[in-house]
Parts: sequence; structure tokens; C-alpha cells
Amino acid sequence: MKKYVYSFINGKAEGSATMNKLLGGKGANLAEMTNLSIPVPPGFTISTDVCTYYMKHNRFPKGLKAQVSEAINKLESYMKKQFGGINNPLLFSVRSGARQSMPGMMETVLNIGLTTKTTSALIKKTNNPQFVYDSLRRLMMMYADVVIEKSNYTQIKHPGIRVELEKILEETKRKYSFNNDSDLTEQALIEVCDLFNQTIKQRFKIEFPNNASTQLWGAIEAVFKSWNGKRAFEYRNIENIPHTWGTAVNVQCMVFGNMGKKSATGVAFTRNPSTGENEFFGEWLPNAQGEDVVAGIRTPQPILNNSKKDLKYQMPAVYQELYEVQSKLEKHYKEMQDLEFTIENQKLWILQTRTGKRNGIATIKIALDMYKEKLQSQSEIIAKIEPDHINEILLPTINESTVKNLNPVGAGLPAGPGCATGQVVFNPQDAEEQYNKGNKVILIREETSPEDVQGMFVSNAILTSRGGMTSHAALVARGWGKCCIVGCNELIIDYDNNQAFLNQQIIKRGDWITLDGSKGLIYKKQLPLIKPALKKNIIFNSLLNMLNKKRALLVRTNADQPKDAQAALDMGASGIGLCRTEHMFFDKERIKIMRQIILAPNKKKRRESIMQLLPYQKTDFYQILKTMDSKPVTIRLLDPPLHEFLPTQKKQIKDLAIELKISVKKLEAIIDNLHELNPMLGHRGCRLGITFPEITEMQTRAICEATIQLLKKGLKPKPEIMIPLVGNIEEFINQKKIVIKTIKTIKTKHKIKYLNIKIGTMIELPRACFIANKIAQHADFISFGTNDLTQTTFGFSRDDIGSFLPQYLEQNILSNDPFQHLDETGVGELIKIAIKRAKSTNSKIKIGVCGEHGGDPKSINFLSKMGIDYVSCSPYRVPIASLTLSKISR
Amino acid sequence: MKKYVYSFINGKAEGSATMNKLLGGKGANLAEMTNLSIPVPPGFTISTDVCTYYMKHNRFPKGLKAQVSEAINKLESYMKKQFGGINNPLLFSVRSGARQSMPGMMETVLNIGLTTKTTSALIKKTNNPQFVYDSLRRLMMMYADVVIEKSNYTQIKHPGIRVELEKILEETKRKYSFNNDSDLTEQALIEVCDLFNQTIKQRFKIEFPNNASTQLWGAIEAVFKSWNGKRAFEYRNIENIPHTWGTAVNVQCMVFGNMGKKSATGVAFTRNPSTGENEFFGEWLPNAQGEDVVAGIRTPQPILNNSKKDLKYQMPAVYQELYEVQSKLEKHYKEMQDLEFTIENQKLWILQTRTGKRNGIATIKIALDMYKEKLQSQSEIIAKIEPDHINEILLPTINESTVKNLNPVGAGLPAGPGCATGQVVFNPQDAEEQYNKGNKVILIREETSPEDVQGMFVSNAILTSRGGMTSHAALVARGWGKCCIVGCNELIIDYDNNQAFLNQQIIKRGDWITLDGSKGLIYKKQLPLIKPALKKNIIFNSLLNMLNKKRALLVRTNADQPKDAQAALDMGASGIGLCRTEHMFFDKERIKIMRQIILAPNKKKRRESIMQLLPYQKTDFYQILKTMDSKPVTIRLLDPPLHEFLPTQKKQIKDLAIELKISVKKLEAIIDNLHELNPMLGHRGCRLGITFPEITEMQTRAICEATIQLLKKGLKPKPEIMIPLVGNIEEFINQKKIVIKTIKTIKTKHKIKYLNIKIGTMIELPRACFIANKIAQHADFISFGTNDLTQTTFGFSRDDIGSFLPQYLEQNILSNDPFQHLDETGVGELIKIAIKRAKSTNSKIKIGVCGEHGGDPKSINFLSKMGIDYVSCSPYRVPIASLTLSKISR
Repeated sequence: MKKYVYSFINGKAEGSATMNKLLGGKGANLAEMTNLSIPVPPGFTISTDVCTYYMKHNRFPKGLKAQVSEAINKLESYMKKQFGGINNPLLFSVRSGARQSMPGMMETVLNIGLTTKTTSALIKKTNNPQFVYDSLRRLMMMYADVVIEKSNYTQIKHPGIRVELEKILEETKRKYSFNNDSDLTEQALIEVCDLFNQTIKQRFKIEFPNNASTQLWGAIEAVFKSWNGKRAFEYRNIENIPHTWGTAVNVQCMVFGNMGKKSATGVAFTRNPSTGENEFFGEWLPNAQGEDVVAGIRTPQPILNNSKKDLKYQMPAVYQELYEVQSKLEKHYKEMQDLEFTIENQKLWILQTRTGKRNGIATIKIALDMYKEKLQSQSEIIAKIEPDHINEILLPTINESTVKNLNPVGAGLPAGPGCATGQVVFNPQDAEEQYNKGNKVILIREETSPEDVQGMFVSNAILTSRGGMTSHAALVARGWGKCCIVGCNELIIDYDNNQAFLNQQIIKRGDWITLDGSKGLIYKKQLPLIKPALKKNIIFNSLLNMLNKKRALLVRTNADQPKDAQAALDMGASGIGLCRTEHMFFDKERIKIMRQIILAPNKKKRRESIMQLLPYQKTDFYQILKTMDSKPVTIRLLDPPLHEFLPTQKKQIKDLAIELKISVKKLEAIIDNLHELNPMLGHRGCRLGITFPEITEMQTRAICEATIQLLKKGLKPKPEIMIPLVGNIEEFINQKKIVIKTIKTIKTKHKIKYLNIKIGTMIELPRACFIANKIAQHADFISFGTNDLTQTTFGFSRDDIGSFLPQYLEQNILSNDPFQHLDETGVGELIKIAIKRAKSTNSKIKIGVCGEHGGDPKSINFLSKMGIDYVSCSPYRVPIASLTLSKISR
Repeated sequence: MKKYVYSFINGKAEGSATMNKLLGGKGANLAEMTNLSIPVPPGFTISTDVCTYYMKHNRFPKGLKAQVSEAINKLESYMKKQFGGINNPLLFSVRSGARQSMPGMMETVLNIGLTTKTTSALIKKTNNPQFVYDSLRRLMMMYADVVIEKSNYTQIKHPGIRVELEKILEETKRKYSFNNDSDLTEQALIEVCDLFNQTIKQRFKIEFPNNASTQLWGAIEAVFKSWNGKRAFEYRNIENIPHTWGTAVNVQCMVFGNMGKKSATGVAFTRNPSTGENEFFGEWLPNAQGEDVVAGIRTPQPILNNSKKDLKYQMPAVYQELYEVQSKLEKHYKEMQDLEFTIENQKLWILQTRTGKRNGIATIKIALDMYKEKLQSQSEIIAKIEPDHINEILLPTINESTVKNLNPVGAGLPAGPGCATGQVVFNPQDAEEQYNKGNKVILIREETSPEDVQGMFVSNAILTSRGGMTSHAALVARGWGKCCIVGCNELIIDYDNNQAFLNQQIIKRGDWITLDGSKGLIYKKQLPLIKPALKKNIIFNSLLNMLNKKRALLVRTNADQPKDAQAALDMGASGIGLCRTEHMFFDKERIKIMRQIILAPNKKKRRESIMQLLPYQKTDFYQILKTMDSKPVTIRLLDPPLHEFLPTQKKQIKDLAIELKISVKKLEAIIDNLHELNPMLGHRGCRLGITFPEITEMQTRAICEATIQLLKKGLKPKPEIMIPLVGNIEEFINQKKIVIKTIKTIKTKHKIKYLNIKIGTMIELPRACFIANKIAQHADFISFGTNDLTQTTFGFSRDDIGSFLPQYLEQNILSNDPFQHLDETGVGELIKIAIKRAKSTNSKIKIGVCGEHGGDPKSINFLSKMGIDYVSCSPYRVPIASLTLSKISR
């Protein structure tokens, strides 16, 4: 006969923590604790095998009933009570327990075993009829809901039985003018139980079972059935839990914390879940049940705070036992534990132990401490730290309690993490003006463009109605670690009147709003934020040190300003993988020159204008190379379509026309002529450097001269030049020639013999992947620009994806946004082809990834197996990338 | 000793036509004719080996001089003349002759051997001093130019020696008041020769060599050197002729057609080059040299026109011999020949034979006749017909003579073939109005959009300042076989004043212009056009019949109107490979409905509006399926971004706002919100069908109902539904589900048991190629949309490529426009991957190509090897595709 039932009684359990698969998480832990001689209410676990058998055959396997009977017999003789008995009645709780926790998804029934007979017996025994009837009415409510209604009806009539019974309870309270459930007298509770009986009978045409065994089997069956309940099923789909696992059922003797002053209930953590400090921490309530702690009707007391209210003072012996238990459990599980306990007449019972939830900094603190305490290895603690823990440290967050009862006014894509609050403005100029007046602003735009960067920079957060996770706004904000929500499609902006409409609400200029950039939620209110006091604290830094030593690949950063580069360096970046140069041209003086370049009437004038940019660019590169001293800095040559530098607003066009001494009409015609239908696929990248070779020359020269200046100061600059958007080997050869020629000229001019500047390209077009073998013959490095590669592979514009992506995700056409998590099927295969080909002709070529995916754990996991040398990501993603890569190197 | 010199004398040549590689085309033909006993002025060919040796070593190989001497000896003894001799001097011509004809690229020197001595001797012999001195001054001019100047100087001083000598000739003529060169008297010519001598000496510090052998070797060396002349070098680059081939040199005895009335020169064709009729055809000039025929100073006379001026009447015996020669040559070469002949004192000499140039219709007529005459096999004649021959038949052309001295005012990309003339308009509405008044118009736009289609349709041609070979204008025009030039970057349009600027010229509304869409040239004039009188003539039709039987794969057409479908059918289309449905929505009534759909406030209203389109769509499909009866028609579901259907002009927006009863501002905001940054990568294709499933449903329903209606009439409609822009298998499954469900509903409704509608998709995204195995599990067919696939593979927007493509081609970064000729490296590899994967899961899947490349011979050649079943192209490309595929099946 197969074994289906595993008992745990008095320090001896048939199961153990390793039998998680068969007994579920809760069952295995109860067995483990029993074996550790921890006082656990005795009971037994019905294995997950029974669940899978039941799902298949719709009945219980042979022999189960006998095994359960035997287990009950054992319990009865150990507890000296009888289940359904009239002398000393034994009551059971029935709880689900799957292999992986599915909080709130499955069912529980308590107080099983209360019948007309046992109720009287228990009153006699406890002399507390109110407690006994209250237990009965609770049993009836749970039983009617879980066993009768949910497990038998697929379509539940509204309102459900639970609501109906709650109503009866409320009406009775009103009738007797009671405020709380606990005020209900014996008489009132008897009345309630009678009404419950009638209602159940009327609704389901069956009686509430007045038989302990019927109750027990009903509850067991209902819990098994709840495995395939709609909610549980959907939860498993989302969490990728196999439907075949099944749940176990735990049947345990009831213990009561509400049996008087010598009884109590409580929750404890083996360490402080807020700070991570290694201190015993918890709360308790005398004469109460677990539910009462959760419901928050009475305020719990601390277990230990050196007051007369703490458990240590009130019940020193029990406290001592609890302290030893928690200490034993943490050492045993090598993990901070979260315990539930009940004290029944001075007797401590541990109802549950599990890994304790904690915030980011506590997680890291505990992990590092446990490593120091040699409780856990480095790999073990790194495995426990998640990206969100790090995000939590780096960014301000909304206090959860303040938004508990507050509905967001709208939602968009969570493009830049963290939270921010500020007053609304609708244009970048206004943002700057308000900022200069000392106001906190949030910039709302349909979409942003490089021209808006200054205004974006001074804003606390950015909200756009269009664009996807890698739209301009999202990219820029993420680079700065700034809160940002994009693609809020419901947002309709009325620029003319400085207002916007969002789900029937008007947002006016100056209104306070708060954005949760990590969740994509918009609140029409100024909410208090929790600031990250820990940005550079000791705990975080020691974590970073550990990660940076352990990570499987190098992590570079995408940064184009010394400040960002420094931030990334502080967090362990091993170089810059992508220094974009276009953002450098939007300051007032420079954009003027850029416009002269674009609108130059001839080659000579154009060259003159381009050369005016040289000193600026030289300073840019000098600063960034200096900051990153001795670490590689990959500088991408000018990439965006030229028209991005031209004004779009009437006033600006007029000003520019006056400046250039041409008519507005003519300027408009020229701008119009430069306009592209699909700029993403237009005149950009190396196509610019080929049509305007002077740009490549000027940028190379600026890089060389900045390098020489630093070399003379004794520094070790390591610039690398990246030629963007190559799809054709001739493009690369053409641009490389100009770069090399320029380097040579500068070397001669400055009488420098040796100038080590690597030259490579970004692989961001499908065609580039196919010619990677040719590219590798000429390039020192390649770096995958996975944003653009995703755009062209899918034919998705990251700026326009917002109009259909939500529906795609909703309908499961895409399982996620391919700009967030790298697409392994298409983009991944192209990368594989490219790497294989590149290495076939140049085994020493350096290979990086510098798209947004370089900061995404899922993508990093995939990419790390492909033979790359480094990933590069926004400064604030550097620790996350390091963490992910440290987990891999386990 | 290696043989370098090959003689041809009196019916015996050491070479033959097969020795083309060694002797060059001309040399091989001269040898062949000699062997055929055709009277060829005897001579010898110095092989291409000498040229390659000379290029490598910069000197002639050992033994060459001896072999040349020996050949000259043979000639002297046969001709009974001496080269450089004083009794009967022998003169030579020296001509280049490469393996492949390079017309005008290399040099010729005539009359070699004229020295002081031989001049006197020749005067004595001919008694014609004027002829002799004229020959001398010609020699001096050619020699100074070719041998002295061009072959010794890489930088030629302006003006060149030839121009300087011409000036002397002109001045002398002026001095003696002569009009023509031939008026120059002996005395004047002597004076000219003296002046020539002085000028040469002064300029080059050397004397014109007064020695026959020096002249000969100088000329031979110069011809070899001319192989690497700048012009020849560039020509070979363009024509893809290997630089290693080298040229041969032909040295031939001079014969003179200008020795009096019994001498003559002429050109003849074995068939009529204008009509292709099998009739001997040619012109001759008595007492003249070849140059005189070309110069057009005297009007040549027909060889045969039953007049007293024809050669048959004037020199019956010579005529008879010439007739026999031409007949022999054509039979021998199995190809229409173009002969040059000279008659020296009643003696016929054939100077050259080669394949005769002819126009398109003549080419086809001759080919078909030669097949009938069993001169050539079917494969042979098909190999000789080129796509341009067919184009010439189908489209109007400019009379070459009218543009001989006319410079085009500008140029652009030749997007739609043929020529057209008309009066300029700058907007589609104006085009319609003018057309309705009976005027011929040419529409000039910066770029076109689907809204302009009606105006484009009524225009004789379209000219745009932007866009590439597959921009909207180009695609639409090519579909209609309409003349079109796109991407004329110099064209600046001033819509406000109804005028445009093009290379310093103003083009105003109403001005006449003429476009040559095959060459991309713009003339600011009304030019007479040659209309294709042969569009449906017997010759063309019999060619089509032959091709359609012989072609290696099926040819379908891209057509969305019954008229186009019919045209394609007439030319042998075996079905419609791409019926776009978007063009169907631009008529006045329908676009109104489309706008209601797009702007619908809710799902219900949207559905209502969509269903209003049903009767229209049903009629569309009914007509086209009826036209194509029993042949497959692949209908692509709605593909373009929705905003294409919205108005862009202020007035239209205002009208629409009134119609929809909303404010202009609100409408503008909505339109603005639908605007996409990169519509090509935006909300289009199946993304529309997924977000608006009602569109898919409506279109499917229209197709089904049209099919049922035709079935009831006894026809055999074969619709196929193509789901566009799939990049993800879930997209296809989603849309297929809707299609199948709709088919089922319609079947039930109409009580139809069997409705065979195939469902497939277009492969137009790189990602689609990688998942082709998955697609093939669900699809009946796939068709490569190579336009879009090229766009995404390269990251090139076909509408914006104009800004850098010209420079890319100029700098050889791209060898051709990838939208014209399929890119084999990137796009080709993706197609290969896709086909392999598709067949791996569905060996029976039908595979087509429906991008513009389906009509491009080079691309068809490549694609035909990949395992596809059909290509699909514009109606007017159908015969070209058939031709290309017939050539393959040889």
C-alpha cells in the first residue's frame, strides 16, 4: 500500500524539510520543526500524490481513509482527546500547502469537529460557551463558503454565501447593539448559528453536517479541489507554476490563543525586517487568535522592548522558549524566519515557520551578516538578493500605507524607476523657469525629443502619452535614474490651454501629481516619499564590492556625462560601453553651430562650422576620459538624424531664420525637405559620417586631442571609437579610413608615436549580423545595439509601440515587451549568428552589448551564454547587472 | 616560342571566331570571315597575351618583333606592296579589339606608313595628291593625339593636341575660304601638314616620325596602353569587365573608298533593324570614307530601293557579292549582322561584321523569325531578348533625335518606365480638375501619399523630389506602368506659389515638361513621343505565348483593380500574388467611412462603421475574382497605418470636423495622437487586425460572399487570404482564428458545404524568417514581401533613402539600390533561412515573392534557385519576369 499520510507528533515526524515535493512547503516545514523538537501542534499531512490522483480520477485513492483513520487514532491517543468525542473533543484545522507558496490562493477550514455533541462537551470542558459558539460560527462560515459553495459550484450566485452569512452576523450585532464580533454573547451566537443553518439549507438544499468525520473529509476534498480553482489556476499561469504539482493537505490539532489571559498569539521575525539588524523582533496579543492580529482591531504589543508589556516580562518562560526556538530555526534553515505562534494556557505552539519577508536594505544587510556569520556562502547570499532589493535602495519610494486607499488616476509603462512628486508643466522651457524659481516640476509631454533634454533634466519626473519602454523619454530618464512613465495612452494633452485630460479628470499646469515609475502609476496628489538615505552606505558598498569581484562578465555603463560616468564608476562600472555624442550638441551655443552645419550652403562653409565644434567636443571627451581614467570609454560617433537638431516650433524657426539671414519660408522649406517619413530608418548613423566625412574627422580629432592632453598629464585614457549603424562592410571601411587618417595626422602634429585607439562598430541591423565575419576582419570590437536590432527584427518602432503593445501583452501575443527582455527567438538568433561569424574571422574580437537589455537580468542571463565579454547599461542598472552576473558565476 | 601574332590573308586565317579570348572580338571575327572566304583586307592580330604581358612588364615579350615582321612580310608578298616602300607603298590601320566590345573607349590609328618617301610614291601611284595629303594629315592628327599625347602624358594640357591641330585645319580653311575639309587643295593640305609638324615639335619636343616602322610600333604600343586609359578603366568598372583581360591589336592593310567614282563605303544590316523584317538593308556613299558616313556631311543612299541610286543599280556585281556575303554571314553567325564595307575600285572589302543593333520589336521579330527559319533554337532566341526590348514595346518613348542636342533640366531616379509629356500641376486636386478639362498633366510633389492616388491616376506622369525606387509614388506608378521619376533632390517645390525650382530654372504651374522615366531625365519642353503601336500585336503575343510555356516558375501579378488584373492576365499572369486592399478605401464615400472607423468613440460604433464597408469590399473582390476566374488571387488584409486615411490639410480637417460634429481642435488632437514617428514600424499590418479584429472579420466576410456569388454563377474563384506583417506566431494564429470562424459563419449562413480559401502570410520581417517553421505549421502559403524585408534588414526607409543613396552608389559603398536588386548577402540569407525552416515543417507549403524584386531580372535569377513556386510583380513587369524565368529554364 502506498503511503499517503505522514504524521508529525511530539518530536517525531514521518516527513522532513527535503520532502517539499510530496508534502508541500508547509507540511515539510511542520515535519522538520517536529523533528527539531519544536512544539508544533501535532497532525498529519496528506501528500500531493493524493491531489494528483484526485485530479485524475475525481476520487480518493484506495487506502487513504484507513491511513487517515490511523493517523487520527495516533493523535487522539497522544492528545488524550477524541475527534468528535464527547469527553475531551479534539478539533482540527485543515490547510492547503503546495510545493511553492501561493499566498491566499487556496483554502483553509478551522475548528473542524464541532457538532451539537462536541460543542456541549467543549463548553463543559472550557467553561467558555461564548468562545465555543464563536468557534462554531466561524467553522460554519468557512465550511459553507469553502466546502459547500466553492468546491461544488463553478458559477457562484451573487452575493456568495460568505457575504450572506456576514450580513446575518452584522444584522444580529445591530439588533443587540454590539460593536465588535467579540462582543457577541452566547445567546446571540446561538441565534447566529441557527440562522446560518437555515440559510445554508435554503440555499444549497443540504444541511450543515453535524458529524466530525463528514466535516473533515469535506474539508480535505475541498482543499484538493481548490487547487484547480479559477484564482489558483490563473495565479499559477502568471507565476509559471506547473498545474501538475498539486497541493498537500495539512490536518492539525487546533490550539487556541484566546482561551484567557494565559493564552496569546503572535508573529515573530528572527531579525529586524526593516533594518536587517540581527535582533529578535515581533509582536503578540494576549487572549487572541491569529485573525485578530491581522484584522488590526487591537494593537499588538512588542515581544521585546524592555517594557512591562513585552512578552519577556509577561511570560518569561514562554519568551525564553520562543527565543530558543527562533534561534534554532534560523540556524537550522540558514535564513531569517518569520514565525507564527500561539500560546494556549502558557504552552507555546509554533504554527508555522517560513522565510521572512523584508525590504531591500534589510535583505542585503541580512545576507552580508549571514555571510560574515558563516551561516551562508557568498553564492547563497547572492542568490537571495534580487534586482528589486537594489532598486529599492537607490530610489525614492511612496510610503505604501499612504496609497492604500488611494486610486491612481491613470497608468502607463514604468519606464524610469522610483517615485517622484511635483507640479505639472507642459513644456521644457516652463520646466526650466519653474525649476529656477525653486519649484519641483513634473514634465508632461506627448513625447520628448533631444531638444527637450534640458527641461527633462530639471524635472523631477517625466510623463508622456506616447512611446514605449525605449522611447526617447524612457531612455534618457533611465540613463539618469529618473522617474518616468511613458505611453499613457489615455492622457490627452491640450498644449494650448496648458492642461491635459486623463480618465475624466483634468490636470492643469501647477497641479501636484505623484508618479510611481516602478509601477507605472499616476496619482493626482502630492504624496510623501521615502528618500533613499542609504545611497552610499556601508552595507550597499560592501555588497557592490562583493558583486564586482564575483560577476561572470564585465559591466560597463552607458554614459555621456562625467557625472553619470562617476556614478557608474562608484557602483563598479568597468568602463563606458556607450558614450553617445548627440546629447552633447543641445546646449545653446552648440545647437546654433549644429544648425549652421546642417544648413550650410556649401562644403566649405559646412567644414568651417563643423570645426567650430571641435573645442567643445574636445572638452566633452577630456572630461569623460579623465573621469574614467584607465578604463575603456567607447565613444559612438554622431548617430541621430540631422533634423533632430532643427527647431520645430514657429518662434524658434523665426529666430533661426533671422540668425541665418534667410527668409522663414525658405528655412521652413529646408526643414521640410530634411524631414523624414521614418527617421529611424533614415539618414543617420554612419550614413551621416559618409555623407559628411568632416563630422567623423572632427569627432576623431577631438578624441585624439583630449587623449593626448590627458596622456601628457600622466593619465591613461582608453578611448574606443564606435562607428554606428553599419550594415555594409564598405561603410565600416570608409569610416575607419577617415578615423585612421585623422589619428595619423594628429600623431604627426603632436609628435606622438603611439596612440592606442580601438575602432569598432555597433551591430544594430539584421544585415550587420550576417556580415559580422567581414566586420570582424576590420574591427577591434563589436557591440550589440539591441534596441535598434529589436526594432528592425520585429519591425517595431519603440516610439510607436504604445498603440498596440498593451493589447499584445493582454492577449498573450507577446509574453513581454521585447524592448525590456531580449527576444531570444529572433534577435537572439541574429546575435548568435553574428558572434559565430565574428569569431570565425577574428577570435580575439571584443564583444559587448550596449542596448537597454544590458541592464535587464533576464536578457543578461541569456546573453551571458553567447560568448560576450561585457554588458553595458545605464549607471543605475550597473549594480543590477553585476548582481545578475554574480548569480551566474555561482 | 609562344605565338603572339595571328595572320588572316586571302581565305586563310590562323585564328577563328572561337578565339575571341585571345584575339578579341574584332580579331576573331576578321579571322572567321577570312576563313569563310569573305573579302577582308588582310592583316594580322596581336593577341591579348601581349597586352597582359605589356601591362605587367611595361615592355613587349621577346620574339614579338620577329613575328610581326614575318606577318608583314607575308602581307607584302600577298598584296604586292611594301610597307614603307617606295614603289607600291602599303598602309596599315591599327585598331584595338577587346574580348567584349567597349565602343569608343580605345584608340585607332589609320594610314600608318605614310612618310615623305611613301607619300610621293603613293601620289605617283594614285595620281591623287589631295587624297594622299589628306590621308597624311589624318594620320598626323591621330598619331599626335593617340600615340604621342595620350599614351605618354597622364595629365593632358588643355586644350589637347587634337584640338590644337583641328584649330590649324580650321584656320587654313578660313584662310582659303573653304567650307569643308574635302575642299582643301593639295597646297593647303601641304601647308596644314607643315604646321602640324611644327606644332607637334614645339609641344612635345619630338618630331612626327618619318618612318613607317616607328609609326607602326608607336601605334601598337599606344593601343595597348589605351587599355589602362582612364576612360576605358572606368567603363570596365561600370560594365564589370575584368581589368585583366587586356585588348588585342588588329593591324590591317588600308583600303580606300575614296579613290574615285568606282570606290565607295557603306554600312549594311542583314535584316531591317527598325522593323525586324527579313530584308537586306543598308546605306552607301560613293567615293567616300567610313568617317564621312558617320559625320553626316553627305546623305548616304540606300543599298536597295529599286532606284537608280541604289547600289544594285550602280554596281550590280559588287552588290551581288555583298548580298551573298551578308547572307553567308547571317547564316554562319545565326544572328542578324551589321557590316561595314569599302569598295576600292570596284573591289569589295568587308571591314567588320558584328551582331546588329536593333530596337525592341525588331529584336523580337527577328528572334521569332529565326526560330521559325530554324536558324536558332527557342532557348537561343530567348537568351537574346532582353527586358529592355519588352519595355520598349510596352511604353511610349522619346524620339532619340529630338533630344540629341537638348540638355535635360534635371534628373532623378527612374521609378516608372516610359516617357510622358504634360503640363505641370502641384497638387492632386488640380490634376483632377485639369484632367477633367481635357488637359494632359504631370503631377509634381515632394512625395505622394495614398490620398493623392486619384490625382496620380489622372496624371500622365509623376515627379517627386524625395523618395527612392520603392517610395509610394514609385510603387504606385510602376503598378500602373506609368512614367515616374522620384528622388529628384535638386527640385525645391514652393507649393504656396505653385512653382518649383530646379537647377536655376523655375517650373511654373501649366509649364510643359517631358519625363523620360526609363532614364530618370526631366526636359523642360513638350517633346513628341513615339507611342507603342504594338501593345497587343501579333509578334509580341507570340513571344508571350512562348515565354509563358517555357518559364521555370509561375508568374503572378500585383494588382488591386480589375483593369490591372486584366492587363496582367493578357500578358500571361498565372494569378494575383498580391492584391492590396488599402487602395480600395480612398474613394470619397469610403474614406469617409474609414475616418469614422478610426475616430469611432467606442467599439460598437467602430463595428457599425466597419460593416458599412462590407458592400464596397464585396464588390471589389467580386470584380477582381471574376476577372481572374479559376486563377488564384492572394488578397492581403488591410496593411497601412491608419493615420494614412486621415486628412493632413487644414481645409480637409475642417470639413471632416464639421462632418463628425466635433471641434477642429479636438480632431487635430486626435490626428496628432495617431501620428507615428516611424509609421513603417508602427501600428500597421496584422497589428491592425489584432487591435481591430472587426476589420479582419469584415474583409474575410466580403471575400467569402463575393466567392459564393461567383460560385453560384458557375465560376471558379480562388481567393487566398494573406495576413500581413506577421513577426510572431501568435499573431498569425490570432488572425487565422478570426478568418476561419468568419468563413464558418458565412458557410452556415449560405448553406455552403465547401469553401476552399487558403490562408497564408507575408514574410516581411527578419523575425518572421526565423519562425518560418512555426508559421508553416499553420499557413497554406507564405510570400516574401521583399520591399519591407529589405527595409528592416538594412534599416533603410525606402521613402527616405534618397538623401544618402546617391552618395552610396557614387562611392561604391553599395553596388546598387537594394530595393531594385535583391540584396543576396543579408535579405537573401534571411529568405534562405525562412524557406529551409518553412519546408522543414510543411513540405507542401506554397512559396512566393511579391515585393518589387519579383519583377527584377537580377533578383528573379537569384530567387529562382531558392525553392520558390512563383514570383509576383506589377502587370507591366509580368512579361519581363516571364522572360527572365524562360532564360533560366534553358
